[in-house]
Amino acid sequence: MELAEILKRCDHTLLKQGARAADIRQLCDEAIKYRCASVCIPPCHVSGAKKYVDESLKICTVIGFPNGYTTTATKVFEAKDAVNNGADEIDMVANIAMIKDGCWADVAADIRAVRAVTRGKVLKVIIETCLLTDEEKIRMCKIVADCGADYIKTSTGFSTGGATEADVALLRENSPETLKVKAAGGISSLEDAETYIRLGADRLGTSRIVKIAIAMEQEQMAQAAAAEEPAVSETENAVDASVAETASETVESEDKIEENS
Amino acid sequence: MELAEILKRCDHTLLKQGARAADIRQLCDEAIKYRCASVCIPPCHVSGAKKYVDESLKICTVIGFPNGYTTTATKVFEAKDAVNNGADEIDMVANIAMIKDGCWADVAADIRAVRAVTRGKVLKVIIETCLLTDEEKIRMCKIVADCGADYIKTSTGFSTGGATEADVALLRENSPETLKVKAAGGISSLEDAETYIRLGADRLGTSRIVKIAIAMEQEQMAQAAAAEEPAVSETENAVDASVAETASETVESEDKIEENS
Repeated sequence: MELAEILKRCDHTLLKQGARAADIRQLCDEAIKYRCASVCIPPCHVSGAKKYVDESLKICTVIGFPNGYTTTATKVFEAKDAVNNGADEIDMVANIAMIKDGCWADVAADIRAVRAVTRGKVLKVIIETCLLTDEEKIRMCKIVADCGADYIKTSTGFSTGGATEADVALLRENSPETLKVKAAGGISSLEDAETYIRLGADRLGTSRIVKIAIAMEQEQMAQAAAAEEPAVSETENAVDASVAETASETVESEDKIEENS
Repeated sequence: MELAEILKRCDHTLLKQGARAADIRQLCDEAIKYRCASVCIPPCHVSGAKKYVDESLKICTVIGFPNGYTTTATKVFEAKDAVNNGADEIDMVANIAMIKDGCWADVAADIRAVRAVTRGKVLKVIIETCLLTDEEKIRMCKIVADCGADYIKTSTGFSTGGATEADVALLRENSPETLKVKAAGGISSLEDAETYIRLGADRLGTSRIVKIAIAMEQEQMAQAAAAEEPAVSETENAVDASVAETASETVESEDKIEENS
């Protein structure tokens, strides 16, 4: 599979607790450059990111995240607030306790209420597969579809486990065609990404694929530079190598290398 | 220190993702029996818990939890919603990214906005000490106090670390007398609890101290029963031991033992 085919399915994601404004801007730069589906970022950064990217990138954010146990009223407010701030896509966490208690009408009402205030936007519902039985996961495929969401999503990345091949296959198999599947949590290689896409995932929640793309690009540029300048001094080579090592960490470093090469 | 002295400072806490209604009722039963300061529970369970305990127990819940990166507008809505649902105490998470970015006016505005809608209730501000430098922690003591919160709290229990002796001492030392300190995250023994109280913590966020109290009570009852009935058969002894082992897990088991003894 072409790398570009994988990248266009990636919600380039940064949801760690201390994610700063500069981190988010870098994430946006990367997602635009590598043509990702969106950036997935904390609610407090949506407004700033929207101003930063305008229409050049979709902004995805998270609601009731990561524990899913805020009240429905709060999820609704939070979703409206996110849309007002410029969010194009909403990844909400279902109420896991209600699922475990088999309160299916309440589970559905929670999702429907958020769907009602996010019309015209993409809604993904995270069911936290690692905490559910297969029976509960299958039940959720039907509920999430019936509530009119666009995606069912495996994981928050903050619980006891992330996406698995078995879960992505199970969700795909038990969801109607109109409901897409997003795999998230622990996706760390191109092989993972390809496997999940092959199993039926339309989106991937991860930051690793872009990091891999950056590293591959650096590698190619380093090889091209080495081929063009075979007589470069050892000192310069050492500097290049150290720059290449840190390249995947910041776009600034990466741009610097492009200027240098 | 008397166990009761420790227990009355405990916010008996259950914030795991899948915490179910029955788990919350059990938590309330335990907190009432052992005279804890409050139960600390997810927002979606506040309304049910309030109906369950009425005025016999304080209900504490969490806002912007655990990542602190929801918008101020959402934190305000969530706090009002919690108070309307019957919450007596509000543990909000400060915006960690704003702290790391040194946007002190924004950090304060976020807290002040929640304070404004929680007048008459206890407000605790979680600063997630494991992610901050000592300088940032000290700065937060002043800001949290200036914003009129009642407590500064070390940790969510969902990040890279919980309360430490050094942090509890640091917060106590750098906060005015009017601002109390709550230690939370990883408190697992009576020794921990006593140490934190001695260092200046007025509250402890943990479920372990009640579990220890339950286990101690079981132990005492088992000893009393053994002393009264020295000729008990081996089979009965084996049953008693297995009941005692599971006793700390559920109040139901524990009540059963009381009836039996």
